[in-house]
Amino acid sequence: MGTATVPANQDAAKAELLQNLLRISLELSATRDRRKMLEMILREARRLSAAQAGSLYIRWRNRLEFVVAQNDAIDLNQLQNKLLGQSIPVGSDSLAGFVATSGRGINLPDAYNLAPGAPFRINRDFDAITGYRTRSVLAIPLKCPDGEVVGVLQLINRLGPAGTVVPFVEGDPAVMSLASMAAVCVHNALLTDQLKQAHLDSIIRLSVVAEHRDHGTAMHIQRISHLSAALARSLRLDSAEVELIQCASPMHDIGKIAIPDAILLKPGPLTPEERRIVETHAQIGADILGHADNEMIALARDIALCHHERWDGEGYPHRLAGVKIPLAARIVCLADVFDALATPRCYKTSYPMNRVLEIVRKENGRHFDPHVTEAFMAILDDVTAMYAHRDAHADPPDPADSNPPGTMPTGV
Amino acid sequence: MGTATVPANQDAAKAELLQNLLRISLELSATRDRRKMLEMILREARRLSAAQAGSLYIRWRNRLEFVVAQNDAIDLNQLQNKLLGQSIPVGSDSLAGFVATSGRGINLPDAYNLAPGAPFRINRDFDAITGYRTRSVLAIPLKCPDGEVVGVLQLINRLGPAGTVVPFVEGDPAVMSLASMAAVCVHNALLTDQLKQAHLDSIIRLSVVAEHRDHGTAMHIQRISHLSAALARSLRLDSAEVELIQCASPMHDIGKIAIPDAILLKPGPLTPEERRIVETHAQIGADILGHADNEMIALARDIALCHHERWDGEGYPHRLAGVKIPLAARIVCLADVFDALATPRCYKTSYPMNRVLEIVRKENGRHFDPHVTEAFMAILDDVTAMYAHRDAHADPPDPADSNPPGTMPTGV
Repeated sequence: MGTATVPANQDAAKAELLQNLLRISLELSATRDRRKMLEMILREARRLSAAQAGSLYIRWRNRLEFVVAQNDAIDLNQLQNKLLGQSIPVGSDSLAGFVATSGRGINLPDAYNLAPGAPFRINRDFDAITGYRTRSVLAIPLKCPDGEVVGVLQLINRLGPAGTVVPFVEGDPAVMSLASMAAVCVHNALLTDQLKQAHLDSIIRLSVVAEHRDHGTAMHIQRISHLSAALARSLRLDSAEVELIQCASPMHDIGKIAIPDAILLKPGPLTPEERRIVETHAQIGADILGHADNEMIALARDIALCHHERWDGEGYPHRLAGVKIPLAARIVCLADVFDALATPRCYKTSYPMNRVLEIVRKENGRHFDPHVTEAFMAILDDVTAMYAHRDAHADPPDPADSNPPGTMPTGV
Repeated sequence: MGTATVPANQDAAKAELLQNLLRISLELSATRDRRKMLEMILREARRLSAAQAGSLYIRWRNRLEFVVAQNDAIDLNQLQNKLLGQSIPVGSDSLAGFVATSGRGINLPDAYNLAPGAPFRINRDFDAITGYRTRSVLAIPLKCPDGEVVGVLQLINRLGPAGTVVPFVEGDPAVMSLASMAAVCVHNALLTDQLKQAHLDSIIRLSVVAEHRDHGTAMHIQRISHLSAALARSLRLDSAEVELIQCASPMHDIGKIAIPDAILLKPGPLTPEERRIVETHAQIGADILGHADNEMIALARDIALCHHERWDGEGYPHRLAGVKIPLAARIVCLADVFDALATPRCYKTSYPMNRVLEIVRKENGRHFDPHVTEAFMAILDDVTAMYAHRDAHADPPDPADSNPPGTMPTGV
């Protein structure tokens, strides 16, 4: 009987493991939240391999971005912001770079004791900062069924029964199976990011075309999109809403296409009648965007119609006040006014930043929703950095480059 | 030993089954081809449950679309086109409608012998046409982890050991596990479709804005997009390329925004100088779209630049000939010319269809690439049906409704 029970137990254990992998597979596929998905990949891989620590890199073009780090022995909270978002070239002589290029897994019993002539080197910076000692390492490519490597998983310090660090098992089927699933999920997520990025890119380009007469409009539209998304994030809207606002906000002034150049580009002050004509752009924009059951276009319509309404009800076209103004329009309103104040136009120079902020504060609760103002103040450092960067780079970047999908885990 | 080997075998069988499910899970997630994914779901579900036949419905808004039918006993080839693409309301009293609404699986030992008061009825039309006898049925909702039902799987006639039809096993864990995976994969595919549809929708809307002065432009742009995609499909380009052309083609005339109204809308014939100015729209369009590493925008640029080139080298702006003209531009060229001929403008009536086709044939090898003309002739029935439908419906439909993502399996 002894000989029979051993395979029985092995099979039962195998069945349990597979059941577990199946559950992970389902959870990974169903996770909409990018960050959670990446964290789950690393956590489950560490659990399957008894790794004390680990890290995950995602490939974006020719770079590997460091997206998740986990370590049960030390507190990484202080280090997260410093570590994550860093990237290394795919072809570099780092371990992850080598694994990504070669598509081969690497199993090291001791990372500090490489075989002579190893085609990579181990970066000890992390250990130097934290005092942690990296010993056994298993680095695996996240390889799709078509052979494309979309990332690298590094498992660190496998814990043996007595809590000592032991070498990893090479080619463990459970870990390899998880790596395959993770590759497919990451690949699908990257494809979705590319779709979203292409969408945003075309909207910005086409919105610029529609308003093409106004020099500098392209950069203005891109900044409004970026700033509105940052405000939405600061207001803790969920990532789907942030993405919608990012895509919808570039179309806020689309109605200006119907305003004659003679009025829109007039250098001096407008007559009351001319001002009235300019103000029609809100309603015209809403009419152009029409009634769509596509939620992004529907939001763009709200924004086009209401981005000149004011919190105190003194705006146009409908003199809406407070929360009767759609939140997205309140957000774009602040972004639009702020950018206009901070940007030189052909007929005026821009205000210095401290003067701009003074105006924003003064208009809090009048022009602007106090919550939106507060959300703006919370991200002020990022905003001023963005404008300082703009002023230092006269040449506008290609919109496609502004937000590479590779920034996925730290992005929206 | 006998008592021990039974669980051992059971566990081994279970492990093998789970291994199999894991493989299916990975394949399903990695499949880019929609049609293959849906067929794989039904095939694997039938294999796990020993079902002789089955069908798969996907939910789109309040309808269930019939997307896959399989039957080992009869040849469905003749029926596929008749069956697929049909849809039924979610709340109807059909079996699939009931399963989708209630979210409950239904197990019928004999579909023709329902319990009295059953809250659904069985449609026997299929059996009447084919002579097939539907007996045991297992209908399962494809339910996502959040409870959303995205489709219904119907397994028909479970074959027992002797080839007789036996009832299905209710709640079989393997089938339920596959249904969960299938739900997540279908849901992810629907989300991707929504993203693509939203993208196409915004491109069409914004391209219309950019050319807004020309009445009827909106429908022209939509037809060009539709017709170009149909031509690309007829040329057997792969579905990713078809989608790119569908999205990029609406921007072909974007450069017209820079042409003065006085010339563009002039009713009579143009002077040579005016014609020269109109012709600049190709280069201007290309300049507007610029150099993008987004492949869709890059393709839109090619199309904007080259859609007035001719196969014989007599076009503009660069007098390119033959295959030096990008294929997508050759496709949009024919679509654009055809639509212009077949469409009444403010200053002209349209040609009758037989006259339009005569012109297309005459221009084969001169204005048009012979391969593209051939691909056009192959889909002529669909094209003339589309234009007859247009002429019968003066009111333009909302672009968002023109191609609901629910048409996914028969679409691109």
